[in-house]
Amino acid sequence: MSEKRLGTALQTVEWREGRLVLIDQNALPHRLTYITYTDWQDVVEAIRTMVVRGAPAIGCTAALGMALGAQYSPPFATSDAFLAHLERMAQAFRSARPTAVNLFWAVDRVLAVARAASDSVEHIRQAVLEEALRMLEEDLQINRRLGYHGAQLLPQHASVLTHCNAGALATVGYGTALGVVRAAVELGKTVEVYADETRPRLQGMKLTAWELAQDSIPVTIITDNMAAVLMREGKIDCVIVGADRIAANGDTANKIGTYGLAVLAHYHRVPFYVAAPVSTFDLRLPSGDLIPIEQRDPQEVTHIQGNRIAPEGVPVLNPAFDVTPAELIQAFITEIGVLQPPFDTLHERLIGASSHHEP
Amino acid sequence: MSEKRLGTALQTVEWREGRLVLIDQNALPHRLTYITYTDWQDVVEAIRTMVVRGAPAIGCTAALGMALGAQYSPPFATSDAFLAHLERMAQAFRSARPTAVNLFWAVDRVLAVARAASDSVEHIRQAVLEEALRMLEEDLQINRRLGYHGAQLLPQHASVLTHCNAGALATVGYGTALGVVRAAVELGKTVEVYADETRPRLQGMKLTAWELAQDSIPVTIITDNMAAVLMREGKIDCVIVGADRIAANGDTANKIGTYGLAVLAHYHRVPFYVAAPVSTFDLRLPSGDLIPIEQRDPQEVTHIQGNRIAPEGVPVLNPAFDVTPAELIQAFITEIGVLQPPFDTLHERLIGASSHHEP
Repeated sequence: MSEKRLGTALQTVEWREGRLVLIDQNALPHRLTYITYTDWQDVVEAIRTMVVRGAPAIGCTAALGMALGAQYSPPFATSDAFLAHLERMAQAFRSARPTAVNLFWAVDRVLAVARAASDSVEHIRQAVLEEALRMLEEDLQINRRLGYHGAQLLPQHASVLTHCNAGALATVGYGTALGVVRAAVELGKTVEVYADETRPRLQGMKLTAWELAQDSIPVTIITDNMAAVLMREGKIDCVIVGADRIAANGDTANKIGTYGLAVLAHYHRVPFYVAAPVSTFDLRLPSGDLIPIEQRDPQEVTHIQGNRIAPEGVPVLNPAFDVTPAELIQAFITEIGVLQPPFDTLHERLIGASSHHEP
Repeated sequence: MSEKRLGTALQTVEWREGRLVLIDQNALPHRLTYITYTDWQDVVEAIRTMVVRGAPAIGCTAALGMALGAQYSPPFATSDAFLAHLERMAQAFRSARPTAVNLFWAVDRVLAVARAASDSVEHIRQAVLEEALRMLEEDLQINRRLGYHGAQLLPQHASVLTHCNAGALATVGYGTALGVVRAAVELGKTVEVYADETRPRLQGMKLTAWELAQDSIPVTIITDNMAAVLMREGKIDCVIVGADRIAANGDTANKIGTYGLAVLAHYHRVPFYVAAPVSTFDLRLPSGDLIPIEQRDPQEVTHIQGNRIAPEGVPVLNPAFDVTPAELIQAFITEIGVLQPPFDTLHERLIGASSHHEP
């Protein structure tokens, strides 16, 4: 890698002096501000209201949120009572958002070490914090590995279309889809990015464009409905998106609009890649039909920055995610390498690999 | 037709007591207000700033704008000098917006009657106003005929997806794509409409949803990037859109996003219809590549209701239209009937028919 180290300035999720610090993503791009959390219940709320979003980021936030709750819990007489408290906390985090599997994966991982350390309250507390901090560190390493693998797929001069934000702001840092872009730039490739604005919440415009501009990576904002024309004009070399949950057959839930983009890429013979860590694969689900899709408040569509833009009284749909069937996906870019079809062996490949790289 | 007469409440473009009155579409859906024009140059500006928009509506507005300018012109000694004045006016209207051919068609039609009546300034003045008023009246009749033809294509219970606004507000009244919906309802069919919000200017959300709600036709707003999922779920029976210019081979310029929608409809085997009057066909252009595409102010993307939503300094694309190739279009719905493929005979069919129905 060259000396250029990108995406390191942003600390989306951080543990600082016994407190959890999050970038307030609802204030971007207008203000870069941080919120410090001391109460785990406020962290649940931060996930629900999307102060922090992006599957890997909310996984790590939930883990640190559990650690926060464990640090500042009322005194418990027995480790069993303390474990029961952690279970209740876990349930609150699980119910914050339904689609991203990393949330469930992270909470379960924290609970597992808590149960393993159940000989004393203090041991549990310490094990939970250590595990959460380990996940933070791993996330960064995973994204760098994933980015490096993905960068090999890009030509020397690449034009990449992305949707929503699968960047440093969707992870602890560096990003998944944008991690691929950063890694390619670090390897000396020139990359220009087109960012779908991504209605209704405009994460592409507000987060992706902003964070790439921080790293001086050329980015152009388009409305979601301009992607097709760019593909037709031959301006897009590939599409790279993140994922919120990937079923065992490769069907992928990601931000609403991803599925349509995959169909457009297919029609225009533009490669469509999903960049996600192994923790985003939910191997218990045989197919994407079974992924729960979060329906969010219609106000996200009808209002912008608190101002109503829609007529009163007209119904609105607001599914936060859609599912792209595996046959529209050229490859999964993960920390264990680029996974090409056939995807019916995903399960074996992931299980085999994760037993190698996980501690 | 049943007794129900829909879409008649809205008078998008009107001549009232020697003045031009337009609905201020930039104020919708929050306020239904009218602007009265006495100066033709303000009418040019109204077209440019989209107080009035929609290909048929801006055609009729330009015609009435010319009539307005003719009524209140300074005195001219000769009819030649007056004609030269009208030519200058025509040029100003033509330069207001580049894509919709109805604007050029309307201006040329007014100029033609002006030249034919060139024996006196007063005759020209009168001929221009009469022609403009005739075009207004024709537009309504054309839309009703077009709507009736299109309504035959819909099942008894239809779910229609539309993009932008091809409604009463895009015409003098009744609408083209929404004229088909209204005619189907008048014929006793049940129609529910999904309206793409249509970024960046949100005409689908602000105009289509609003005007259908006025007529109590069920409508649901979606963001543009939700259309693909609705098609996949089998919720869309057909897509109907308007057009700004149709080349001789059937390639169709319409609001940005239309092309992507046509690709999605093709992939999901959902019929994709273009509803437009014969005056929207530009038979001099052999194909859609030759249609000029208006690039509008980036602020339409970066700001909503005057508030910046995008990060500063990031470039933005804002093409107002795209071109859908004819092979993605199932049929054109026009006042002379539903035109099915092959479209290489469009020229003959349109020329033959228009010689019948035009005076």
